Amino acid sequence: MNAEIIACGTELLLGQIEDTNSSYISRKLAEAGISVFFRTTAGDNAGRLVLAISAAARRADAVIITGGLGPTVDDITRDAVSEFTGRKIIPREDILLNLDEFFKKRGVKMPESNRVQAGIPDGAEIIKNSRGTAPGFILEHEGKVIACMPGVPYEMKPMLTDTVIPYLLKKSGENAAVIKYTSLKVAAMPESAVNDAIKDMFESYENPSIGILAHHTEIELRVTAKAGSVVKADEMINKVKLEIKKRLGDNLYGENEETLHSLLAKALTAEKLTISTAESCTSGIIAARLTETPGSSSYYRGGINAYSNDVKAGVLGVDSVVIKEHGAVSPECACEMAVKCAELFKTDCAISVTGIAGPDGGTAEKPVGLVYVGIYYKEAVCVHKFLFSGNREIIRQRAAVMALFEMLKTVNRMGK
Amino acid sequence: MNAEIIACGTELLLGQIEDTNSSYISRKLAEAGISVFFRTTAGDNAGRLVLAISAAARRADAVIITGGLGPTVDDITRDAVSEFTGRKIIPREDILLNLDEFFKKRGVKMPESNRVQAGIPDGAEIIKNSRGTAPGFILEHEGKVIACMPGVPYEMKPMLTDTVIPYLLKKSGENAAVIKYTSLKVAAMPESAVNDAIKDMFESYENPSIGILAHHTEIELRVTAKAGSVVKADEMINKVKLEIKKRLGDNLYGENEETLHSLLAKALTAEKLTISTAESCTSGIIAARLTETPGSSSYYRGGINAYSNDVKAGVLGVDSVVIKEHGAVSPECACEMAVKCAELFKTDCAISVTGIAGPDGGTAEKPVGLVYVGIYYKEAVCVHKFLFSGNREIIRQRAAVMALFEMLKTVNRMGK
Repeated sequence: MNAEIIACGTELLLGQIEDTNSSYISRKLAEAGISVFFRTTAGDNAGRLVLAISAAARRADAVIITGGLGPTVDDITRDAVSEFTGRKIIPREDILLNLDEFFKKRGVKMPESNRVQAGIPDGAEIIKNSRGTAPGFILEHEGKVIACMPGVPYEMKPMLTDTVIPYLLKKSGENAAVIKYTSLKVAAMPESAVNDAIKDMFESYENPSIGILAHHTEIELRVTAKAGSVVKADEMINKVKLEIKKRLGDNLYGENEETLHSLLAKALTAEKLTISTAESCTSGIIAARLTETPGSSSYYRGGINAYSNDVKAGVLGVDSVVIKEHGAVSPECACEMAVKCAELFKTDCAISVTGIAGPDGGTAEKPVGLVYVGIYYKEAVCVHKFLFSGNREIIRQRAAVMALFEMLKTVNRMGK
Repeated sequence: MNAEIIACGTELLLGQIEDTNSSYISRKLAEAGISVFFRTTAGDNAGRLVLAISAAARRADAVIITGGLGPTVDDITRDAVSEFTGRKIIPREDILLNLDEFFKKRGVKMPESNRVQAGIPDGAEIIKNSRGTAPGFILEHEGKVIACMPGVPYEMKPMLTDTVIPYLLKKSGENAAVIKYTSLKVAAMPESAVNDAIKDMFESYENPSIGILAHHTEIELRVTAKAGSVVKADEMINKVKLEIKKRLGDNLYGENEETLHSLLAKALTAEKLTISTAESCTSGIIAARLTETPGSSSYYRGGINAYSNDVKAGVLGVDSVVIKEHGAVSPECACEMAVKCAELFKTDCAISVTGIAGPDGGTAEKPVGLVYVGIYYKEAVCVHKFLFSGNREIIRQRAAVMALFEMLKTVNRMGK
């Protein structure tokens, strides 16, 4: 069983809203083991929607359409399906009653324009919409399933999972295979280096398959397995995960919902350690991450965003001779910042960051992107030097990620 | 001139990531007056991508492909275009040199796998990629334009606006109808209140039309106009904007790329004012926003993330009697935090935030979501009380938005 998705709406083609429906439907179909090879977006034009439906029905077993079921003249999905299948639109008494009910509950009379929503192609089954006025419908045409749902995500979602997917699974008859995926998080490695390390796996693995996704600050590896059961799929994924871990080592730091800051929060809590931050160019980014986790007050005590040099000296207490001799962006200053931060906040650990985020302020000797990170752990400090590429915001984000990564590695190593 | 967009990537068809590229490209094409009637999403399968390209090229004047240009075996766009057009992939010396340069700058040797990115179909023009390793390319086949760009949004965006769209406009030669839209930013008003205030405009306006989009922390109104020229479209939008501004007042604070923090940065710079932050529950979120703007060191001096009570007293200097008598989450504490912050950092303005982000720590008297914001401006302080709904992260984000909004209003009012 494979399906195609058609999202319908001129506002999508104009780029005014993101088409989050298509990715939601994709995800749910994948979880149910139904393959999707194409998705199409079409506008509020019946003729072109008919073209899209006919192309999809030629290629796939099922066509899932979202959008275009509202009460306005823009809403052309009913008419397009009618034209494609040659089935007339028949007004349905039961839908009309439901609509009446819906408006009565809200204490208003049904607007005349909503009556059009009671018409669906002859012989189609209703997909109930418990959250809005537009019902969906499902029908079969020359052996292909065509399912239509509204475009409002809040209305569409339960209709998909409660009615459409069960219908497709029943129709397919077979015990559809399960598709599961795990996302592996990699830090401090460029995409090409990750690729070089596991190139043979990319090329030879088909099930589980491995995909790579580069974000600004991190790399994600997606291991996708297709199997007869969730247990079997998990087993297959685990085997691949172990092999990748062997090759990438510490750089593979977590998976799925895990983030550098959630893992650092966990590690600090487990070791009963406290932490503070002294941030110059990242100015609060690391502090904000460290406090995303509920209960963060047990490990995070506070921090200083030491943006100007007087603040580094006057508030944080960095020796102004250090700043004068080496500059604020120097290993010496990063070191002092981390030490003074731990002293001021009375913490076991401290992170300091000082660098040049740009776009201005760079020199030949200290270019934009140069960042020093100080990692303080129980009276020992280590300073790391980085040269990041990217614009101001990307440099700041990369600096924050590397600081969290170095701190996490330190806590993990020392805790053992 | 009309175009189709093909987004390429199995991770899209599995619903693992949102396809934000297609909507961005849609928006930019609409702004340039280039119509889009269909968008397609295809996976990392060369045969199926060829099918998608050939269908798109049959219907449209131009096919814009994003994704599949990376260095791995997953990246099949080069091969698919080669197959569709019958043009061989030719390794290009100039790309290879650029790649070499890119890695040299970063002080690393080019990984072998990146060499494949130097090959593009015979006779294609290069679309330069200033932000990554994969160049794009553009070619014409049987009168149709085919443009290929990487899938990384940060890399793709300038390639689209600087090269692909100018190419299409030059090729089309005609003056297409322009679709323009402006996004109006509204803070501190729930969606229903915005809706009530401009309901009649929503219902009766067709060109320009008005759409509403609710985010967690703000509301966005999108005014879209179709006209014969950019000037005419701008005029139409401006008229609607003035009417909405009249109804929403200060709550309509900006438009398009403007954010609360970018406007605050501008206002502080214009008034030559300095600012500092003392954040408890938002812990760095406001500081990070205030330093997003290049040149922020001219107004932002620093801040303290006063997460624990000892830090509020010991580092920031809040009277511990105040904390003892009124609690850390109190108007008195917010007031002291703002005053002490301005003193410590020697700034004209200061923002303080103290509140309960949850999920734990709430009481009947001080529930989760209770936040006090202190706004200090030249020796005067004003404390605002809020009760936000939402989860921990939404409460923190809402608190940051309201703090920035109140500070912006104060600077604007006092500066006049």
